[in-house]
Amino acid sequence: MQPKNNLFLQALAGQSVNRPPVWMMRQAGRYLPDFMKLKAKYDFFTRCQTPELAAEITVMPIDQIGPDAAILFSDILVVLQAMNIQVEMKDGIGPWLPKPIQSQADLQQVIVPEVEEALDYVFGGIDITLEKLENRVPLIGFAGSPWTLLCYAVQGQGSKTFDKAKAFCFEQPTLAHELLQKITDTTIAYLKKKAKHGVHAVQIFDSWGGLLSPDDYQNFSWPYIQQIVNALKEQISVIVFGKGCWFALREMSQSGAAALGIDWTCSAENARYLSGGNITLQGNYDPSRLLAPIPTITQDVHKMIRAFGKDRYIVNLGHGILPNIPVSHAKAFVEAVKNYKE
Amino acid sequence: MQPKNNLFLQALAGQSVNRPPVWMMRQAGRYLPDFMKLKAKYDFFTRCQTPELAAEITVMPIDQIGPDAAILFSDILVVLQAMNIQVEMKDGIGPWLPKPIQSQADLQQVIVPEVEEALDYVFGGIDITLEKLENRVPLIGFAGSPWTLLCYAVQGQGSKTFDKAKAFCFEQPTLAHELLQKITDTTIAYLKKKAKHGVHAVQIFDSWGGLLSPDDYQNFSWPYIQQIVNALKEQISVIVFGKGCWFALREMSQSGAAALGIDWTCSAENARYLSGGNITLQGNYDPSRLLAPIPTITQDVHKMIRAFGKDRYIVNLGHGILPNIPVSHAKAFVEAVKNYKE
Repeated sequence: MQPKNNLFLQALAGQSVNRPPVWMMRQAGRYLPDFMKLKAKYDFFTRCQTPELAAEITVMPIDQIGPDAAILFSDILVVLQAMNIQVEMKDGIGPWLPKPIQSQADLQQVIVPEVEEALDYVFGGIDITLEKLENRVPLIGFAGSPWTLLCYAVQGQGSKTFDKAKAFCFEQPTLAHELLQKITDTTIAYLKKKAKHGVHAVQIFDSWGGLLSPDDYQNFSWPYIQQIVNALKEQISVIVFGKGCWFALREMSQSGAAALGIDWTCSAENARYLSGGNITLQGNYDPSRLLAPIPTITQDVHKMIRAFGKDRYIVNLGHGILPNIPVSHAKAFVEAVKNYKE
Repeated sequence: MQPKNNLFLQALAGQSVNRPPVWMMRQAGRYLPDFMKLKAKYDFFTRCQTPELAAEITVMPIDQIGPDAAILFSDILVVLQAMNIQVEMKDGIGPWLPKPIQSQADLQQVIVPEVEEALDYVFGGIDITLEKLENRVPLIGFAGSPWTLLCYAVQGQGSKTFDKAKAFCFEQPTLAHELLQKITDTTIAYLKKKAKHGVHAVQIFDSWGGLLSPDDYQNFSWPYIQQIVNALKEQISVIVFGKGCWFALREMSQSGAAALGIDWTCSAENARYLSGGNITLQGNYDPSRLLAPIPTITQDVHKMIRAFGKDRYIVNLGHGILPNIPVSHAKAFVEAVKNYKE
């Protein structure tokens, strides 16, 4: 059954719409006071791993901000946990992996799990979320790209350069490709199961793809995303978002993905040109610009829609919403899209 | 008098060469054991502000690694200090500004100094460095771009997003432009004086330009770099390096700059296309790839020279060398260029 508000799926299908749909990456997050109340009570992975909590958080922005799609509250790193890689979340540090992958022996401990069992809480979260949404808007599922997950699995924590992860790939490419394939196989099974549980689309986040040169991207990131798109595209629409990956938009546009995410350093004009002009694009408001005064936000959003065109376009930020954004500004962003007139 | 090894200046002038020149951003830095010995004895700003030390550090890689140009050891933040903005360097944090610029009142404390006096230690460092170099290779002077310096002046420390700095620009654009102009005026006087003291070229580092959208870049960064290029270009060759600023290469190529720095996410082919094909380009090896085995580095460098072409090209990294690079790998990078045969 189609959601009552079907704009997002229409845009993904390339259908003409009166106005583009809008949602925001990390819209169920730390800028919402009600989220912060739950954050004070439950630690990070408790929030991810308790279906009722994940569902409550997912639906929060739908009630409070009004975007045209929900995205399941979770984290890209739950896939690594399911693969027998320990992941913790440390205050002031972020993700922390006590035993990063450095050798063949480490890699042998990494499994391709039965996702139904290992990630059952995610699928349970989808079931409850769909109930709570009462078919108002579509629900998006997501996963990190294999390269982006390798970054954490090898580096062991966040990094500006992920130089250890890159060194691993450059020094031991065979091991790197083996790890990437295991992540890919797990991710395909994971996203297929999400689709089966009823999410309406999936997005692949290649958050660290833009740290690679175009050659290294074609070696260590893109082929694995392409495998995922190939495995999923007949079953569900796939959105590929590679932050900083303007240089790969041509390959992405020919991949079978339904839409491509664009960051704010790539103008609408460049994005349409580089992606060939026929694929739905999603983005690309600078998340920091949500700190600008509301009238500026409204004006910017209308300018952005005119630049991308209202069709084959999904309004979004160019990366996740920042924790210090006033709720009124996030709401103004969504409202500006709803008020858009050609 | 021309330096004995004049390859770098020939490439800047667009002259044909047998092989391209090579140097590395941050080549006088933390990957060198002798630098680490000085680091253990003298704090950061002592190293910058003691002409003998700055000169010793500047010449270190010339003796130990053999690049075709030296770059004066200093820091972009000394310009803010000269403008009456307090800058400290904190262990584990990096740059730390106790009183970031947030208001008109803060801005009124910011001066455009007499650089000869306020930054005399830099000019003293140039004099001693030129003596130590004995005319072996050219000496490069540098400055941060006004936008990049504003980032620190307003944010008060390093940041992944520099969201406070951006919010300042979006909320108080008049103040932002006033600060940018003060930095620009100081930088022009500073670089002119460097040229007078005998540096052979200057590079402007727009390290955080790539955090801006193309529109914001044209508003808050590019016009000030253009002012600097206009003021300097008759006197000395100017290299502009905007990390992540592939989207502005067209404007940069028409600015009067002698060369443009390219990061590793922009392929040689894209860089030549976007910059119009006639300007000298500098870059763009991924600094993390210096962790690859030496034969890989050698092969990569030769491939990179073939991709950019040997003329109108200066071999460099796409950003500063990382502290964890083995000296032998840095040396292999330089050697690979010297051994290049068409």
